[in-house]
Amino acid sequence: MSEKPVRFGILGCANIARKVSRAINLAPNASLYAIGSRSIDKASKFASENGFPASAKVYGSYEAVVDDPDVDAVYVPLPTSLHVKWAVLAAEKKKHLLLEKPVALNVSELDVILKACESNGVQYMDATMWMHHPRTAQMREFLSDPQRFGQLKSVHSIFCYNPGPEFLTNDIRVKPDLDALGSLGDAGWYCIRAILWAADYHLPERVTALPNPEFNNSGVILSCGASLSWANGKIATFYCSFLTNLTMDITCAGTNGYLRLHDFVIPFQENVASFYEASSSRFATLSLGCEPIPSEHKVATDLPQEALMVREFARLVASIGGNGLEPEKKWAVISRKTQLVVDAVKASIERGFESVVVGN
Amino acid sequence: MSEKPVRFGILGCANIARKVSRAINLAPNASLYAIGSRSIDKASKFASENGFPASAKVYGSYEAVVDDPDVDAVYVPLPTSLHVKWAVLAAEKKKHLLLEKPVALNVSELDVILKACESNGVQYMDATMWMHHPRTAQMREFLSDPQRFGQLKSVHSIFCYNPGPEFLTNDIRVKPDLDALGSLGDAGWYCIRAILWAADYHLPERVTALPNPEFNNSGVILSCGASLSWANGKIATFYCSFLTNLTMDITCAGTNGYLRLHDFVIPFQENVASFYEASSSRFATLSLGCEPIPSEHKVATDLPQEALMVREFARLVASIGGNGLEPEKKWAVISRKTQLVVDAVKASIERGFESVVVGN
Repeated sequence: MSEKPVRFGILGCANIARKVSRAINLAPNASLYAIGSRSIDKASKFASENGFPASAKVYGSYEAVVDDPDVDAVYVPLPTSLHVKWAVLAAEKKKHLLLEKPVALNVSELDVILKACESNGVQYMDATMWMHHPRTAQMREFLSDPQRFGQLKSVHSIFCYNPGPEFLTNDIRVKPDLDALGSLGDAGWYCIRAILWAADYHLPERVTALPNPEFNNSGVILSCGASLSWANGKIATFYCSFLTNLTMDITCAGTNGYLRLHDFVIPFQENVASFYEASSSRFATLSLGCEPIPSEHKVATDLPQEALMVREFARLVASIGGNGLEPEKKWAVISRKTQLVVDAVKASIERGFESVVVGN
Repeated sequence: MSEKPVRFGILGCANIARKVSRAINLAPNASLYAIGSRSIDKASKFASENGFPASAKVYGSYEAVVDDPDVDAVYVPLPTSLHVKWAVLAAEKKKHLLLEKPVALNVSELDVILKACESNGVQYMDATMWMHHPRTAQMREFLSDPQRFGQLKSVHSIFCYNPGPEFLTNDIRVKPDLDALGSLGDAGWYCIRAILWAADYHLPERVTALPNPEFNNSGVILSCGASLSWANGKIATFYCSFLTNLTMDITCAGTNGYLRLHDFVIPFQENVASFYEASSSRFATLSLGCEPIPSEHKVATDLPQEALMVREFARLVASIGGNGLEPEKKWAVISRKTQLVVDAVKASIERGFESVVVGN
C-alpha cells in the first residue's frame, strides 16, 4: 500500500461535501487537495470553512479540478443529472471516483459511468456511508449464520425525514431537472441498499410499488414505497419520504433469528452504534412472554462511518497504484443492483403499481 | 357495577384457554365457573390443572355450558370454523361472548354472530389481549397528539413465529376445515388490528396482498403480507408467518413523530412493557447524528393484559346487568373492521395480488 495519502478533489460545494471533507481529513490515508465550484468565492469560502489546508487548490470550475494532474480521486456530490458528464470526464482524466448517491438517473446512465471507470482503470465507489460502519459487518455476520438467523424471510426498511417547507421548495432533491428521482433516489436508495444487503445482494425477481406515492407540483416523488419479492418466498418492503419524521429502521426476520436497528443511515452517536438480535425466540410457558428477549449489541468505532468509507476507498485506490492491480469491482456491482431496483420502483409507479420484473 | 363476579364458562380445552383461565382468576370481577369439552375427562383434567375451584361445573359437551343458567359469559377458543354455531347458540342463551380470534372465517359469518349478540342484548368482545394493556392507551395518546406525532403517514407491523414441524403438521391453525385462514387469521389478525388501531380505526380504501405468500399442501396460508392504503397518502404494510422467528414489531411514522415497539402482541415481561418514541427528530449539525434520540417509555401494569381484558369485559357485562344498559358496541365495530381487512387480503391473494376495495 502506498504511504502517500490519496489526494481528493471535490466537485461543488454541496452541503454533504462538508461532512465528507471532514471525513477525508479524518481518514489517515486521504487528504483534501482541491475544491472546485462555478463560483471561486464559494469554493474559497468552502475550503476555509471545511479544514482544507492552506496549500489546497481552489478552482472556479469543476473542469479545473479534473484537469489537475495531482488530484488522485474526485468526490462528486453534484445534482444527479450532472453525474454522467462529470463522472465520465473525471474517469477519462484517470481520477478515481467516489460518487454521491443516487449515482445516476437510471441504469443506462450508470452503465456509461461504470464503463468509463472500467476502461480507464479507476476505482468506483458510491458514497453509501453506513456500508462501512463496523456494525454493518457484525450484522452481516449474524444474518449469514444458519443457526442464529437461518434463511431470510422478510425485511422492512424505512428512511424518512421531514426537512420542512424551505427544502420542499428549494432543495435540488425536489427539482425535476436536478434530482428527478426525489425521495426515491435520496432516501429510497438507502432502503433499497439495506434490503439488497440483507438479501446478500441477490436481486429480487419482481418489484411492485406501494399505492399512494406523493409528488410535488413538478411530479417529483416526495414519498413512496415498494415490495420486492424473490422466488423462494422471501419478501421485502420499504418506505421513504420527505414528509415524515426522521426514521431509519431495518427489521429482518429469518427462520431462526431476528435483527433490527433504528439508525441505519446515520448512527445516533458517532463512536458507538447498536443493533438488536434474537435467535430461536419462543413464547414462554402459557405464552406469558418471550424467550429470549432481543439483546442489544453495541459496536464501537474509532472513526465515523464516512471516514471509514473514505479510508476504504483510498485503500483500494492505493492498492491499484502500488501494485498495478485491477480496481475492486464489488462496489460497481452493488451500486448497479441498487440502481436496477430504483429503476424498477419508478417503472412500477409509472405503470400504476404494476408488478415489474427487475432488469439486469 | 355489580359486586358479583361474572361467572365464565369455557368452551373447549384449547391451549390458549389455559392462559385465559389464569386471567379470569386474576381479574377481580370474574370467576371460573364451568368448563365443557367433548371429553369429560379432558374437561376434568383441564379444570384441575388450571385453577378452577372445586365447585366449578365440568361438562362433557359445549352445549351443557351454554345451557347452564348460572353461566353469565362464555369464552370461545374453539377452531374458527365452529365459531358461528357456538357463538350464536351462546348468545341465544343470553351468554355474553368473549370470542377468540380470528373471530370468523369471513365478515358474513361475523355478521351472523354480531346480529345474534345484538338481538339478545349480550356483550361481544374479541380476545385481542394487547388492546387492554395500559401501554396501548399511552401509545394511542402519543399518536393522537398533533404536535408530538402529527399526521400518520406510514405503519408497518409484523407478527411471526416459528412453531416448528409438529405445529405445521397437526395444529388446528393449519387445517383447512378448522382454521382455514391460517397465519392470516392467526398472526395477521394482530398486524391488521395494529394498523387499524394506529389509523384510529379509519378503514383503508384498498388492500393489496404482497407477492409470495406461502401455503401448505392443503392450501392454508403459512405466511403472507399486504399493503393497506388510504386516500390521503397514508400507507401501511404488514407481514405474518408461521415460518419465521418470533417477531412482533410495530413502527409508526407521522409527520412530526415516530413510535415503535417490539412486543406488541405479548409483552416481553408481564408487569412492565416499553415503547419508544421521538418527536421533531432532526439530523444533527453536519448530519453527524440525530436529535433527539428516540426515548424508551416503560409502562407498568399490576395485572397482565389478558386479565385486564377479562376485567374490562366483565365490567361491561356487569354494567348491562346492573343498569339495564345496552352492551358496548365498540368491540363489535373494531372486530368487524379487522375482519373486513382480513377478507380483503384473502381476496387479493386469491385474485393474484390485485388491489381490492375494502368492503363495508
